[in-house]
Amino acid sequence: MNEIEFEKRKTIKQVEESTALAPKFDQDGLIPVVTTDFSSGEVLMQGYMNEEALKKTITLGEAIYYSRSRKILWHKGKTSGLIQKIKEIRIDDDQDCVWLRVDVQGGSSCHVGYRSCFYRSVPFGNDSSNTVLKFEVKEKVFDPKKVYGDAPNPTKL
Amino acid sequence: MNEIEFEKRKTIKQVEESTALAPKFDQDGLIPVVTTDFSSGEVLMQGYMNEEALKKTITLGEAIYYSRSRKILWHKGKTSGLIQKIKEIRIDDDQDCVWLRVDVQGGSSCHVGYRSCFYRSVPFGNDSSNTVLKFEVKEKVFDPKKVYGDAPNPTKL
Repeated sequence: MNEIEFEKRKTIKQVEESTALAPKFDQDGLIPVVTTDFSSGEVLMQGYMNEEALKKTITLGEAIYYSRSRKILWHKGKTSGLIQKIKEIRIDDDQDCVWLRVDVQGGSSCHVGYRSCFYRSVPFGNDSSNTVLKFEVKEKVFDPKKVYGDAPNPTKL
Repeated sequence: MNEIEFEKRKTIKQVEESTALAPKFDQDGLIPVVTTDFSSGEVLMQGYMNEEALKKTITLGEAIYYSRSRKILWHKGKTSGLIQKIKEIRIDDDQDCVWLRVDVQGGSSCHVGYRSCFYRSVPFGNDSSNTVLKFEVKEKVFDPKKVYGDAPNPTKL
């Protein structure tokens, strides 16, 4: 398979209105990635890719992120078995964000054990005087202790 | 209405498994935000909020972002009329990302004129040798020239 090449960003019209893939990576060399469940549309997680991760994701058809805490490429699901199979890749108008639509083999994308990382809602509007989070998803899909053992928790304070 | 206060981030268990709203802002004081259409589930855009924008969004029930290019709070739709009415706010496991589910009055969230910013797909897997973007959405909802006039395009090369 040929190596993928990204186009140089030349004009706003090229970036927004053409078929040229010319992604923009930030000062740290990263592009944010939104990952949704292909069937339910639920947002599963938000992560980052560097250039290598995006190229490998495109070629392999499985989600490969860049872990900012561990500073390595991160083939999602390699430890837990919960691989994200790509069904569609979208890129936004100014090509500084990627949207992945995936099928998760095993059904979970969250290291805490829930299906989605976004298992809590924030009250708003008339309810916003009391900002107590509400658990929208109560059932865990897996037990993180059994899957990850003593591996360090990626959440940073 | 009372001013919203966020909790201090104390422990991983508090951040991941409690009802305390303790969002994490990055070194620039920002938190990434994924915005989806409440009805279709489509990802409309990805933006950023600072602390003030998140508090105002929660209180008002309409999406207020922080514009990194203009360095100001950005009440989405104030110019175009395409206000994003919040239907649900979710926060992720480590509370460093926000997911907004919105109804867009007018039906578009993209400054180029499309319904969603993610109107192009990237071929992958066996199709990845030819990385030509495909337009998945062909119809614009509005004419950006009529709506924005000569305002500077937010896309940066």
